[in-house]
Amino acid sequence: MAKFLTSKEENYSQWYNDLVIKADMAENSAVRGCMVIKPYGYAIWEKVQAQLDKMFKDTGHVNAYFPIFIPKSFFSKEASHVEGFAKECAVVTHYRLKNDENGKGVVVDPSAKLEEELIVRPTSETIIWNSYKNWIHSYRDLPILINQWANVVRWEMRTRLFLRTAEFLWQEGHTAHATAEEAIEETKKMINVYADFAENFMAIPVIKGVKTANERFAGALDTYTIETLMQDGKALQAGTSHFLGQNFAKAFDVQFTDKSGKLDYVWASSWGVSTRLIGALIMAHSDNNGLVLPPKLAPIQVVIVPIFKTPEQLSAISDVAKKIMADLLSKGISVKYDDRDNNTPGFKFADYELKGVPVRLAIGPRDLENGTVELARRDTLTKESRPIENISDYIQKLLDEIQQSIYNKALNFRNNNIRTAQTWDEFNDILDNKGGFIMAHWDGTTETEEKIKELSKATIRCIPLDSKEEAGKCILTGKPSNQRVIFARAY
Amino acid sequence: MAKFLTSKEENYSQWYNDLVIKADMAENSAVRGCMVIKPYGYAIWEKVQAQLDKMFKDTGHVNAYFPIFIPKSFFSKEASHVEGFAKECAVVTHYRLKNDENGKGVVVDPSAKLEEELIVRPTSETIIWNSYKNWIHSYRDLPILINQWANVVRWEMRTRLFLRTAEFLWQEGHTAHATAEEAIEETKKMINVYADFAENFMAIPVIKGVKTANERFAGALDTYTIETLMQDGKALQAGTSHFLGQNFAKAFDVQFTDKSGKLDYVWASSWGVSTRLIGALIMAHSDNNGLVLPPKLAPIQVVIVPIFKTPEQLSAISDVAKKIMADLLSKGISVKYDDRDNNTPGFKFADYELKGVPVRLAIGPRDLENGTVELARRDTLTKESRPIENISDYIQKLLDEIQQSIYNKALNFRNNNIRTAQTWDEFNDILDNKGGFIMAHWDGTTETEEKIKELSKATIRCIPLDSKEEAGKCILTGKPSNQRVIFARAY
Repeated sequence: MAKFLTSKEENYSQWYNDLVIKADMAENSAVRGCMVIKPYGYAIWEKVQAQLDKMFKDTGHVNAYFPIFIPKSFFSKEASHVEGFAKECAVVTHYRLKNDENGKGVVVDPSAKLEEELIVRPTSETIIWNSYKNWIHSYRDLPILINQWANVVRWEMRTRLFLRTAEFLWQEGHTAHATAEEAIEETKKMINVYADFAENFMAIPVIKGVKTANERFAGALDTYTIETLMQDGKALQAGTSHFLGQNFAKAFDVQFTDKSGKLDYVWASSWGVSTRLIGALIMAHSDNNGLVLPPKLAPIQVVIVPIFKTPEQLSAISDVAKKIMADLLSKGISVKYDDRDNNTPGFKFADYELKGVPVRLAIGPRDLENGTVELARRDTLTKESRPIENISDYIQKLLDEIQQSIYNKALNFRNNNIRTAQTWDEFNDILDNKGGFIMAHWDGTTETEEKIKELSKATIRCIPLDSKEEAGKCILTGKPSNQRVIFARAY
Repeated sequence: MAKFLTSKEENYSQWYNDLVIKADMAENSAVRGCMVIKPYGYAIWEKVQAQLDKMFKDTGHVNAYFPIFIPKSFFSKEASHVEGFAKECAVVTHYRLKNDENGKGVVVDPSAKLEEELIVRPTSETIIWNSYKNWIHSYRDLPILINQWANVVRWEMRTRLFLRTAEFLWQEGHTAHATAEEAIEETKKMINVYADFAENFMAIPVIKGVKTANERFAGALDTYTIETLMQDGKALQAGTSHFLGQNFAKAFDVQFTDKSGKLDYVWASSWGVSTRLIGALIMAHSDNNGLVLPPKLAPIQVVIVPIFKTPEQLSAISDVAKKIMADLLSKGISVKYDDRDNNTPGFKFADYELKGVPVRLAIGPRDLENGTVELARRDTLTKESRPIENISDYIQKLLDEIQQSIYNKALNFRNNNIRTAQTWDEFNDILDNKGGFIMAHWDGTTETEEKIKELSKATIRCIPLDSKEEAGKCILTGKPSNQRVIFARAY
């Protein structure tokens, strides 16, 4: 199968597209920019959802569901939000079709025009805060800690499977608080939840930071982000958490009586991650043979392939395989036994490599004689012969080791690709020849930030939370700066 | 709390609306016909989803996701489907807004008109079969057993929370098979899964049957249904499973090579249930004090309320309560300990009755002395004093008993409300004075079916799968009939 993939080195972008298609993750649909998430890709999303949902609930959140449509006028209520979101979006103008009088199928019924157009949600702050207005009267109604799993639509002009699609699946948290401090604490808490998930489940190291004013979410006072590095040296923003201040409360007139009886506007946060994470997962770890999935998010963690010529051999192997399966399942490890007889073992091996199954066991007649199995690791592509006895204990430990090893590899790559640049020439040299994150001084103005982007196609990914004060000069203007920020070309 | 509910006897419809609102299940939104599902209502939907998803996977299905938008022309491809679905729907005509030149917020950008309008999916057969066309070439690619959890939109004119909303959440299964027999088997298998879920989890008895030609899903050769009875004597269709024959395969040209090398169109089924189930759950069991939830779908199964005056009392009670909680949790029973001191026990009791928590424990200082708790059952509103020792074992059994008891009550009600009618007068008398299901003869024509509906507002809910042959005369026309069908006024 792997031969069908363009190599990463030859064309990273084509490698990614090939991989998404060949590994049966997703495909383009008949609707421009909208993807079909196929069962194997969706199974990974289900793992992502289950884990994040647990983490949200463990931190006190509950789920709810708000309408997909937002009245057009809602977007005008928060001044900066309208600039950011009410532009490229799907607009519903009519609510009925009718049979064409000339018999040419169906046409829009002009008499069924909506009084006010509805926007398919690009994000739900407005419709949610319009609801919160009725829910919040007193400090006793706070905090509200709600998350929503939903589809959203942004009419992107250039789309790529998982990374940027017109419709995508995501979760959006929308919280309401009595104080600014509490809302900021929530905002930080959730970027930490995302960082925890990215590092410990996706096995992708992150840099936590805040966005510059120019890169903030439309309507936010502060946007926290986790920034990740892909294997081609480009950055990918994997999740964001926004401190919204009182902007949406003011826009939708959401006030509450505090403990002292004083009326005040409510403080807000919002935070989200999307199916884009699947794109990051693919691009961070995979190789020219296919997907490399961290065990914690792999739909199938172990596959067992019998090597046989006769039905008797298969029968004997199956007995052993079923015992191993039962042991693995009792440990909560997902396992598939592929005893199809219409494909060769070689075909199966290549297919499970393409699909990124972390551990593959092959069992043949010789193995049965010796009491062994052949165990192959997807991440390192190494094989070893192991005793069948206690193999499930070994695999349980091995899956943890693989999870850690995939993370370590990504961490090493990321750490080797954080560079400092002192001058504009050095900055551009790194961008063009090495890629990765660049720590550089910037004079703090939006004007310079935009000029740098225009000249180099690099953006400020974030001001890292752990960045130290350091006097320096802006790489473009030479003006004074007191800390480095992180630049990169990004997805 | 209960005093805020209109009584069922006074106004059933108002009782339902009050209950949905007061129990914090859902509310109307700013968008006509679209509801907000609030956390408590959504928590029940999550329980429904988790159980159904497990049942779908146990029967070999996988999840996937298809676009929310469907090109308008797709609806014209299947002749009867267009009649049923391409009418009252949300139509996206533009993909951009812009700032109004007069400064009045945002307006639709006329230059961003779509070449072909997009319909927000009312159901996904068309977009899915357009994808299946590329997935299916040979019998080896079959069967495809896919389910999708999604939101859909049907522009209903008269809406009611959960029961009929413009946007609703649902799952839709779409399967593809090599033979008619296999597709029919799948169709029946899934109506049985729905019946199993309704009876054993929702505690609602069902009548399984097939719809008349007139009531079939648009594009189906046969529609199987589960019909349920609400407490006001009206029927509610709780789930449907459709044998689609080769209709969609022909509409989207999906052919496959069978084992003998012959080209044939693929056979299909589709099946779905929606958030409407929550409406059925509420209407089937609840009373004038609030929700009555079967334990298997209750977000909180047990609530513990301490009765105390002093902090010392609370502390002593909390020690005991926490032990009980730990025991319950270890048995997989969800439990909440409500030690808030700003509400009276009486307020809490009424609130948890309103919310339908199946079992309530109250523990006071006297109970501690006696080693007892006061245990209240929500379904029967009975109380008893029980020893604290082994209380979790008792509750575990009690929850099963409550589940069964709620089902039995609904079953008795349903069985007492299936009546036979021999004449048109008798038919109308039952409808007007008793309601419920009516077994009656019908001459088998759509004309008569529609006439009966027009005259009596009753529809044929289904031809029961277990109905026996029995010669008789149509209640309206007197023409011969060979089996009774089930009529009812319905939601």
